[in-house]
Amino acid sequence: MAKIALAIHGGAGTILKSQMTTALEAEYRSGLDTALRIGWQILERGGSSLDAVEATVCSLEDFPLFNAGRGSVFTHEGKQEMDACIMDGHNLKAGAVAFVKNIKNPVSLARLVMQRTEHVLLAGEGANQFAEQIGVHTEPDEYFFTEHRWLQLQEAMAEGRVQLDHAVAKPIGTVGAVACDINGHLAAATSTGGMTNKKFGRIGDTPLVGLGNYADDTCAVSCTGHGEYFMLGVTAYDVAARMKYKGLSLEDAARETIAHLTKINGEGGLIAVDTAGNITLPFNSDGMYRGYVTVIGQINVEIYGS
Amino acid sequence: MAKIALAIHGGAGTILKSQMTTALEAEYRSGLDTALRIGWQILERGGSSLDAVEATVCSLEDFPLFNAGRGSVFTHEGKQEMDACIMDGHNLKAGAVAFVKNIKNPVSLARLVMQRTEHVLLAGEGANQFAEQIGVHTEPDEYFFTEHRWLQLQEAMAEGRVQLDHAVAKPIGTVGAVACDINGHLAAATSTGGMTNKKFGRIGDTPLVGLGNYADDTCAVSCTGHGEYFMLGVTAYDVAARMKYKGLSLEDAARETIAHLTKINGEGGLIAVDTAGNITLPFNSDGMYRGYVTVIGQINVEIYGS
Repeated sequence: MAKIALAIHGGAGTILKSQMTTALEAEYRSGLDTALRIGWQILERGGSSLDAVEATVCSLEDFPLFNAGRGSVFTHEGKQEMDACIMDGHNLKAGAVAFVKNIKNPVSLARLVMQRTEHVLLAGEGANQFAEQIGVHTEPDEYFFTEHRWLQLQEAMAEGRVQLDHAVAKPIGTVGAVACDINGHLAAATSTGGMTNKKFGRIGDTPLVGLGNYADDTCAVSCTGHGEYFMLGVTAYDVAARMKYKGLSLEDAARETIAHLTKINGEGGLIAVDTAGNITLPFNSDGMYRGYVTVIGQINVEIYGS
Repeated sequence: MAKIALAIHGGAGTILKSQMTTALEAEYRSGLDTALRIGWQILERGGSSLDAVEATVCSLEDFPLFNAGRGSVFTHEGKQEMDACIMDGHNLKAGAVAFVKNIKNPVSLARLVMQRTEHVLLAGEGANQFAEQIGVHTEPDEYFFTEHRWLQLQEAMAEGRVQLDHAVAKPIGTVGAVACDINGHLAAATSTGGMTNKKFGRIGDTPLVGLGNYADDTCAVSCTGHGEYFMLGVTAYDVAARMKYKGLSLEDAARETIAHLTKINGEGGLIAVDTAGNITLPFNSDGMYRGYVTVIGQINVEIYGS
């Protein structure tokens, strides 16, 4: 029996204690805590890492403060377009969706792409047509509407900014989970509502295998931050490559990958787990909403940098 | 001064001499030859690898027999949707577009995404809006119509097949180019019309950095084949990772990457070049339309396997 392990993130960026209220911080912590408990329960009962990361990310998608699912930011056109990816390290299979609309849990749709199609990535209206065909849970626009996101769009448009979610005073980003189950199998899932005021059908790293999300039988990785740099750094897979080809530990590999990200001016972080149940959560931004469960089942939630 | 180098491909798959006519083979060879001459001329005059791969891929896109640009296959809806990616290894910058319509040269639009936006990948209508805004060359539907592609769609629909281009009797696939310029700088470009009868907004490996196309200061790689497996194998970046982290030569790294692709049931091939001007063109399919130029400027074009 392997050592089960679970780690999550709720976005990285300029997260400063000085800009946070006690009540808001408590809300964030509660969202992270709830998600960790859901995933951990699955792993403790002998469930798969794939089931655990899906359920954990669903919980984070349902929580309105994170930029994924329900709390997604608005595009330039005032729409909410969501991206997600899930990867099963044991079978090296993956599914992903890009800019889908009205899907309650994009990560679950990504899993259905993996399980019911021969494809890895479906995008736009086509992905929504697939969702409709298989009867995936949708919600009306009102479900996804949150006032703080709408205000963020109005501000961004007034200032002419295309902004990453972390570039604002109250940063909330991508969500993700990585897990190792009782059989030592790994999985990773990542989900996002993208960038406020984004235009031109921009796709970031989140739905892209090896860039924002990756799992094989070496490690599972979920990234968050300025997506374009994670794409150029092939960040998620780079952790696995440094472990496989350089023989590095999970922690050393992830540290080197983040150092490379820093070198190419990328900002953000990642969470990763290996088959021994080791966990690492490095980032180069001011903070990252994150959490993990220790071997004895103790939940740890952190927000700020050191 | 570095040794300049250029390699191209026009797709990999079940390409058998027994199924080819002399006239058709001559046509393919001429398309590859023309593209190589265009890119080589740029490199010989001291032009950048980025200019060389763009011009080379434009030539392949304009050639109606290859599945990219003008010769793109039809989707289930009878449309032609094209993907492309270009990457500048020296600056580690990239631009890409997914399922754009009516763009004469998707690879040039990808370069404009790299140069004029803060993004890496634009998709769908949004990408077309960007193209319109900057005045990119478009062509009407008739320009892209080729009878053999239309017949392929009718056959595929009659048989209920979602088919990769290489899965048919007359295979024609993705196109790509990799180059090393006089300054030892590398670049890679890849372009495709996707899969015949594809549905649901499927995106393959071609427009995705590190998966179907990659360049840094180690090597430049362009892939062709069954895209989903190239995505799961993070194939293009994997060559660079094996060179950087295992210290392998370009040829050994590419051979190992293709061996891994074979292990995960992926079919296809890649072309790659390093800063010393070495070239490799491995594939595990029956054939791959391919070509390269030797140091003394001799053009070599090949189609079948050994």
